[in-house]
Amino acid sequence: MISKERIMEIIGNYDLDNLSIATVCSHSSLQIFDGARKEGLKTIGICVKKPPKFYDAFPKAKPDEFIVVDSYKDIPKIADELVSRNAVIVPHGSFVEYLGYEEFVDLPVPTFGNRSVLEWESDREQERVWLEGAGIHMPRKVKAEDINGPVMVKYHGAKGGKGFFIAKTFEEFKRHVNPDEKYTIQEFITGTRYYFHFFYSPLREEGYQLSEGILEMLSMDRRVESNADEIFRLGSPRELEAAGIHPTYVVTGNVPLVARESLLPLIFELGEKVVEQSLKLFGGMIGPFCLETVVTDDLEIKVFEISARIVAGTNIYLNGSPYSDLVDSNLSTGRRIAQEIKLARSENQLDKILS
Amino acid sequence: MISKERIMEIIGNYDLDNLSIATVCSHSSLQIFDGARKEGLKTIGICVKKPPKFYDAFPKAKPDEFIVVDSYKDIPKIADELVSRNAVIVPHGSFVEYLGYEEFVDLPVPTFGNRSVLEWESDREQERVWLEGAGIHMPRKVKAEDINGPVMVKYHGAKGGKGFFIAKTFEEFKRHVNPDEKYTIQEFITGTRYYFHFFYSPLREEGYQLSEGILEMLSMDRRVESNADEIFRLGSPRELEAAGIHPTYVVTGNVPLVARESLLPLIFELGEKVVEQSLKLFGGMIGPFCLETVVTDDLEIKVFEISARIVAGTNIYLNGSPYSDLVDSNLSTGRRIAQEIKLARSENQLDKILS
Amino acid sequence: MISKERIMEIIGNYDLDNLSIATVCSHSSLQIFDGARKEGLKTIGICVKKPPKFYDAFPKAKPDEFIVVDSYKDIPKIADELVSRNAVIVPHGSFVEYLGYEEFVDLPVPTFGNRSVLEWESDREQERVWLEGAGIHMPRKVKAEDINGPVMVKYHGAKGGKGFFIAKTFEEFKRHVNPDEKYTIQEFITGTRYYFHFFYSPLREEGYQLSEGILEMLSMDRRVESNADEIFRLGSPRELEAAGIHPTYVVTGNVPLVARESLLPLIFELGEKVVEQSLKLFGGMIGPFCLETVVTDDLEIKVFEISARIVAGTNIYLNGSPYSDLVDSNLSTGRRIAQEIKLARSENQLDKILS
Repeated sequence: MISKERIMEIIGNYDLDNLSIATVCSHSSLQIFDGARKEGLKTIGICVKKPPKFYDAFPKAKPDEFIVVDSYKDIPKIADELVSRNAVIVPHGSFVEYLGYEEFVDLPVPTFGNRSVLEWESDREQERVWLEGAGIHMPRKVKAEDINGPVMVKYHGAKGGKGFFIAKTFEEFKRHVNPDEKYTIQEFITGTRYYFHFFYSPLREEGYQLSEGILEMLSMDRRVESNADEIFRLGSPRELEAAGIHPTYVVTGNVPLVARESLLPLIFELGEKVVEQSLKLFGGMIGPFCLETVVTDDLEIKVFEISARIVAGTNIYLNGSPYSDLVDSNLSTGRRIAQEIKLARSENQLDKILS
Repeated sequence: MISKERIMEIIGNYDLDNLSIATVCSHSSLQIFDGARKEGLKTIGICVKKPPKFYDAFPKAKPDEFIVVDSYKDIPKIADELVSRNAVIVPHGSFVEYLGYEEFVDLPVPTFGNRSVLEWESDREQERVWLEGAGIHMPRKVKAEDINGPVMVKYHGAKGGKGFFIAKTFEEFKRHVNPDEKYTIQEFITGTRYYFHFFYSPLREEGYQLSEGILEMLSMDRRVESNADEIFRLGSPRELEAAGIHPTYVVTGNVPLVARESLLPLIFELGEKVVEQSLKLFGGMIGPFCLETVVTDDLEIKVFEISARIVAGTNIYLNGSPYSDLVDSNLSTGRRIAQEIKLARSENQLDKILS
Repeated sequence: MISKERIMEIIGNYDLDNLSIATVCSHSSLQIFDGARKEGLKTIGICVKKPPKFYDAFPKAKPDEFIVVDSYKDIPKIADELVSRNAVIVPHGSFVEYLGYEEFVDLPVPTFGNRSVLEWESDREQERVWLEGAGIHMPRKVKAEDINGPVMVKYHGAKGGKGFFIAKTFEEFKRHVNPDEKYTIQEFITGTRYYFHFFYSPLREEGYQLSEGILEMLSMDRRVESNADEIFRLGSPRELEAAGIHPTYVVTGNVPLVARESLLPLIFELGEKVVEQSLKLFGGMIGPFCLETVVTDDLEIKVFEISARIVAGTNIYLNGSPYSDLVDSNLSTGRRIAQEIKLARSENQLDKILS
């Protein structure tokens, strides 16, 4: 991983009055560009082959400039170009996925957030060490032969939940599993899914206090999963199995929701614990993160995954959410990132939020 | 129940230029506080042990002051303190539940709305007398031995829908029922649930006219119920029963929605009938109320319950809804309550909206 | 169909400084009236028997004037009255349905959009010629005897999806079908439904370029269908069949959602193809239209229907959506229509958007 010193050296040569925000043209780029512009920052869209035409339909979110690559794998080749434009990269999920983990952590361009989080987040075992170490309740890990109730089986390499499946018995597991792939078996928690969109600021002083900095919760969503969300129209999973039709869990979009207000203390506690543990383990997870949870009928919250950067569920709230409206008007997560970068700049603390 | 005369006597000693809005720190308090502040009123949060930290993350909704109690049951002990701060209580569902019905109706602090509504709303039989007397279509009551199609069985004491269950036959009913608890059996209506958020103003003159005052419909939501909303991913209710897994109906949050515009005449008619009947029966249900309904595929609306105060589903619309936007900008139900209190104050008609 | 020449002759006598927007009091009229008023245009509500009272509850959307008819079939009788008020009709789905296809296309009142689209859209065969000719992927048509997997059976005359049903085998089909009605059998696509709300402007120059004019995508929704969306609470379709309970697909409302940003290029491509083909086939589909789709777990989008005018799903976004917010503030589809009419007026190009 590129060292903090090297990044700060690069930033040392930046014309800070002309910072620009760069990201890959996908995932949550509309709000990242729109938010940066609202905060008066320039924007750069990184795209493959040619600028995507759809930005023309969203003038407020069209980046000021595009940098074209042949393939996202070539982003390292434009590092100098990005640096020459005083760019800060805002990495979203697709950015890291398209570029590749190794290439991302080495990229010699200042990047919003702490890149060290990746090694804790990208491996399910490490993630569990982090979250359970923080005192978070996760679905139990289950050994195949111990299955005696519903479990969710997740393949490590699976893109977007396509190979995931639910089993209720060992027999059912054996019938479905592809033994050639690495998988994890988790207890299936019955309840309703909530994805909480937090923001950790090491810089702001007013707000929900942590040991260092403050915690915000800007919005929440539920993912829309294809085909699992609507397949019940055809039949129950067992009935469909006979017909060779299987539920899949590929995210196609997001719906807005709010949680019972009485859950807010618990929700914030979860966010707080995760950040505090991240400070201990690897110097802190900076900026936006998402806890992916199930709320049970006992009103317990089980966290089944963490995303340590902006998630696409925040796209619903490009002009504010029922929660962010209580912080600031028209506040998207993308805009909040731009605010944090500006604050760090004005307080000469860019080292605290970039890596 | 404390008399109107006593309440008006208390109000008579208030410094009306320094009214404050008080409620319990839960349920819909964020919008109640945010709305009051937007209308220039002071706010008081009533909390147990210590101020909840989460308000620090929502600066616009953080109350100006907290009053701490050891237990919500102790709210009567702070009545004098509330009165000394010229407080008007805005009771939400949790307020009444936490404090207790008897204590709530006797509380010697001016309270928004008509406390008489409680005896009609808190008893399922009385509620049915009120709503059916208003000409509202409710799901039929069914005797256990007459079950010959889907019914919903609701326990009287059940908190948040946990013990509710669906049965399709008498045998299924007998297999599930806990004979030690009081229950109600209602016809199960197939359709889609809509929760309509109304506001009855006895003071405003412009608008949807009732015999006295006007009716507004500010928003609608659908409740998210755990685990019923997602349990189909595991299997059908019958398949899961064998595995000892049962659907439950605990509200964990809310999603926004809108209804077909062609339903609006009927929706308003329902609200109108309920208010008119409340005026006849007990002097009127003042302020926000919610009709909890199922819209069938014949586009009929069956009302299965009424909440005679602000419901948590309005939390989605802290900065306006597709309906309230047509009344006023950034209008939450919480803010609408503050507007009504201000209007009553300026027109010297606080007796019409407080009890 | 009334000729363009005749319409332009009528418009030639209009007092263009006093244009008004007229539509039937249902469907999406609130945003049409609200949007027109925001753009400074007068509004006329066409209603049966008497003005619907519910507008009184939505002052910003109450039309300036009502014209009362005995039945929507009588709208042709008020054509002169509409013309004398310089009215442009904005036809929504209910407008066309209530008035009737034949009467609508002959109505001698200037109408927003191209009325020729109706003959392509109202017949499922023609619709398929149009969409497949544009290179759009639709669910396959299936012959009854070829059913060997899930299909959706749609009756031609069915109002709002009530008679639709799903079958997985020929036997199941035969058991359900009403042989006295005309039906279409389509492959049932498993996935999640998205309804994309586009706007085609032949006049604007800046934006997502088509061969003539530009394309916008202002919002998306998912329809709420009664009772199909909640019937899984009772049991699987097969279990319920025994009890004589059948899923139905009647739209009762809409929920908001957003799609994965990586789908936007494909979504725009679909809109683009449909418009370009409409330009070739019948002079173009002007203004708002909706593609009704299923997004599969391969992230393919299958279009199962098109609506060539404003759809009720846009009612969610009366004050803007996460997409329209990137075009303009507080931009509903209703308001966008009013903007287009004003632009055409100021550029002397009303012939391009009226018929």
